[in-house]
This record gives sequence, structure tokens and C-alpha cells, in this order.
Amino acid sequence: MSKTVLIVHAHPDPASLTAQLAASARDVLRGVGHEVIQSDLYAMGWKAVYDERDFPRRRDASRLSFVDESGHAFRTGTQPDDIRTEQAKLLAADAVVFQFPLWWFGMPAIMKGWIERVFAYGLAYGHRGAGNTHRYGEGGLAGKRAMLSVTTGGPADDYAARGINGQLDELLFPITHGTLFYPGMEVLPTHAVHGAGRIDGAGMDAARAALAARLRGLFSDAPIPYRAQNGGDYPGRHLLADDIAPGVTGLRAHLAV
Amino acid sequence: MSKTVLIVHAHPDPASLTAQLAASARDVLRGVGHEVIQSDLYAMGWKAVYDERDFPRRRDASRLSFVDESGHAFRTGTQPDDIRTEQAKLLAADAVVFQFPLWWFGMPAIMKGWIERVFAYGLAYGHRGAGNTHRYGEGGLAGKRAMLSVTTGGPADDYAARGINGQLDELLFPITHGTLFYPGMEVLPTHAVHGAGRIDGAGMDAARAALAARLRGLFSDAPIPYRAQNGGDYPGRHLLADDIAPGVTGLRAHLAV
Repeated sequence: MSKTVLIVHAHPDPASLTAQLAASARDVLRGVGHEVIQSDLYAMGWKAVYDERDFPRRRDASRLSFVDESGHAFRTGTQPDDIRTEQAKLLAADAVVFQFPLWWFGMPAIMKGWIERVFAYGLAYGHRGAGNTHRYGEGGLAGKRAMLSVTTGGPADDYAARGINGQLDELLFPITHGTLFYPGMEVLPTHAVHGAGRIDGAGMDAARAALAARLRGLFSDAPIPYRAQNGGDYPGRHLLADDIAPGVTGLRAHLAV
Repeated sequence: MSKTVLIVHAHPDPASLTAQLAASARDVLRGVGHEVIQSDLYAMGWKAVYDERDFPRRRDASRLSFVDESGHAFRTGTQPDDIRTEQAKLLAADAVVFQFPLWWFGMPAIMKGWIERVFAYGLAYGHRGAGNTHRYGEGGLAGKRAMLSVTTGGPADDYAARGINGQLDELLFPITHGTLFYPGMEVLPTHAVHGAGRIDGAGMDAARAALAARLRGLFSDAPIPYRAQNGGDYPGRHLLADDIAPGVTGLRAHLAV
């Protein structure tokens, strides 16, 4: 069945690996009958900095609480047009693919700023105005899928389970778990192309093919098995129950494996 | 002995908890005789987006490689003035304190963009133009200390070893290890104030006192015991040796404990 996929990507050079993979992803997804919408953040001149200009009609002009003003602006329909447009694209999407170069082990600032401004209170957090009652596995983006598709300068070994940079899926946990699973999205394992700085023509073909293979599983592959807040593993909504993954600490404790 | 401390902070409201803690940190550090320099990113109107405007004299105008152009601009002294000014402040500092609200489990985009633009190739990576030869424990910022001082909306439990958000020090590993230890800084354990949205006058006093206590140890407390790349634990510079923390995987494997 035809689905709608939003591709958000961040590199200013149309000839970059990021731009080429985003274009390739678009073609592959259209080729299997999906509708594709895109947010090419550099080309759009996306405003990265989240600030008072994003709240033209303040709830409280005397102090700037981003949480309060975000909720107020979202609820009252007073957000700037660029934010509303991106939220509409996000809400229209059945899946979102984020294509970006890993810079200092995270998203480029322009993409982080897309998250901060588009993921409003009432939409991506504070679901139903109920604070943290609904999060991690349910929320305003439930029913959608997400996948990170990253390029790195270093070799794959550096991101392996005992690689010097740290294991890639743990480095990206703040995004996959804390940003995408938080509002209820099902998040697929991250797709990575390593050694991006030295890629040649054959490497490019291989990178396109590998991404295409992942995209063909976008709506069928198993998501990362993060634990839902309200699924029983966190009885008070904050801490894992003692009998769930007993003795396990850190990020991996939140994987139901 | 008197030292120089750079405080980088990110919140647009001068009355915010972030701004108040940054001001309090400045006063405490000056009170013990240190020189304090500041980068109030919102007040400076810091350009968050890393793009072609940061390379006014391109090495290669036909394609934009950030690594290549960053190295070229840094080496040839052709970086924009705002980047050069921040690099001079960074190089003058014996320690850097980053004060920010945790947004989607990371730095606000404006601060991420400070890292991306200021941490140039040849300064913070690609030390001595030698790619990854010198990193993690040595590099262009060796001899300096760093500390993250964050505020979070949620309760401390959410960030505990078995808290639903994930353990705070693992969430921040991409910054503490991947961004600050990478160019050689000694990184102190992160300082956090939780429940920032509902803080009252007494809570504010407690928050100031707790930060002051940490700042008094800025040059004496033990840093996080991350493993140096060239200290013997990573014989080929990429993977942990089999006999180091045998069987341990993920971020924690890089702690010498």
C-alpha cells in the first residue's frame, strides 16, 4: 500500500554524499509507489535557532519558558509559518528518514534546530497537555516510523561495540530513543555509511544499494525494541521495575531483548 | 593560582535559570581569583549554521568538504571573525564550562553550532594535520578542563542508572567523550539541576550553591577516567584490546574503572 515518507536532510552541497543519498532515497521510495516529501534544510535556509521569534504572541512576555510558550503557540495556532509547514509535513508522513553527516556524534545544528522548533509541546511532548503521562511508545507521532541514515568520516571499526568512538547505536540513543521513540514513533535500527570522506564511484554505488535495501524494509523491518513507558516495565513512569532486566544499568536497560 | 575560565551558555532570557547560573558561576569563579570570559550565545546572535559562508576562500569551490575547507581556512587564517574570536577565547581558557538546558537530550542547536564552527580541523580534530593520529586524551585542547552544567525539566529519577530517559552520563557521552575529550580536554563529571521548570527561590539558592561547590573543584576534582587513544588500550587506534575490559561493550567500555 502506498505510504507517504518525509526525508529530512542536511548538507549544503547538492553534490555531497548526503544530498546524493537523499535523492537516491527519494527515487527508490517513489519507485515502489510511495509519495515522498522532502525537507532539504540548507536549501530551505531553515532557521536553526529556537528563540523568542518563534512565539510572536507570548503567553507571558515577562519570562521565556520554552515549554509554556511552545504549548501556547501550538495550541493557539500562533506558530510561525515555517514551523507549521514542517509540522504539516511531519503529520502527513507515515515514516520519516533523517539523512545527515554525523558531526561531533550528533545531528548538524541545523537539523537539531529543526527538531527543537518542529517538535512542539502538545505535538511531540506534553501529549494531550498531560506532561509526561504519554511518552515513549505513545504520543503525538504514534503510528509513524523513523530511521536515521548517517554518514561518518571514520571507519566502521571506530563505531563498533568496542570501537573507540563508542558503539553507534548508543551514541545515537538521544535521538532514536529520546527524540523519536519519545513521541511514539517506531524507530528502525540506524543505517550508516562509514568512511564517507574517501568514497569512490564503486563505494557510492554500494552506498546507494545498501540504503535502497533498508528503505525497502522501511514499513516491514522490526523496529528497535525500546520499552514503552506505559507497557508495564516502568510502574511509576520513571524507573525500570526491579524485576525487568535486573542489574542492568545505562542505555541498554531500555532495550527489551 | 589564578586561571582563566570560559563560560559558554545558551538561553535567550536573561532571567532564565541558565542565565542566572552562568552569572552565578562567573561571580563564584571571580571570587576565588580566576579570570572569567563568557560567550552568551543568544545575546551574541551566534550564527548556528555551519555553511559555505564560513569558508570565504575555498580550497575547492567545486565541492564542499567541511573537513578539507575547515582545515584550509584554519591553516590559512581565512576563517570569519566570529569563529576566530571564539577560538581565541577557547585557547586563552584553562577550563570551559558549558551551561545549557538539555533539549532533546543534547545541547541547544545554537551551542551545537558553536562546537561545529569553532572546533576546526587542525584545532580540535586533525591535530597536527595528522587525521586521527592524535585524539582522545591528546590534541589541540590538551591541558584544558571542561565541565557540562545542565538543567533538565524532568526529575532526577528519569536520568538515573535505570531511569526511563537513560543514564545522564551516557546520554551526554557524545559531548563529554566525543567532543571534549576528543581534542584532549580533561572532562569533569556533568553537573545537573533537575526539575528546572518548577524551581522556586529556595531551589534556586540550592542550585547556585551546588554549582558553586562544583566550580570550586574545577581544577582539582578528578576527571571522568576516559581511556586515551594512545595510552595502550587501543593498540591499532580503533578497537579496544581484547584484554582491556574483556567482554564489555558500548559506551562504558571506554571508562577506565
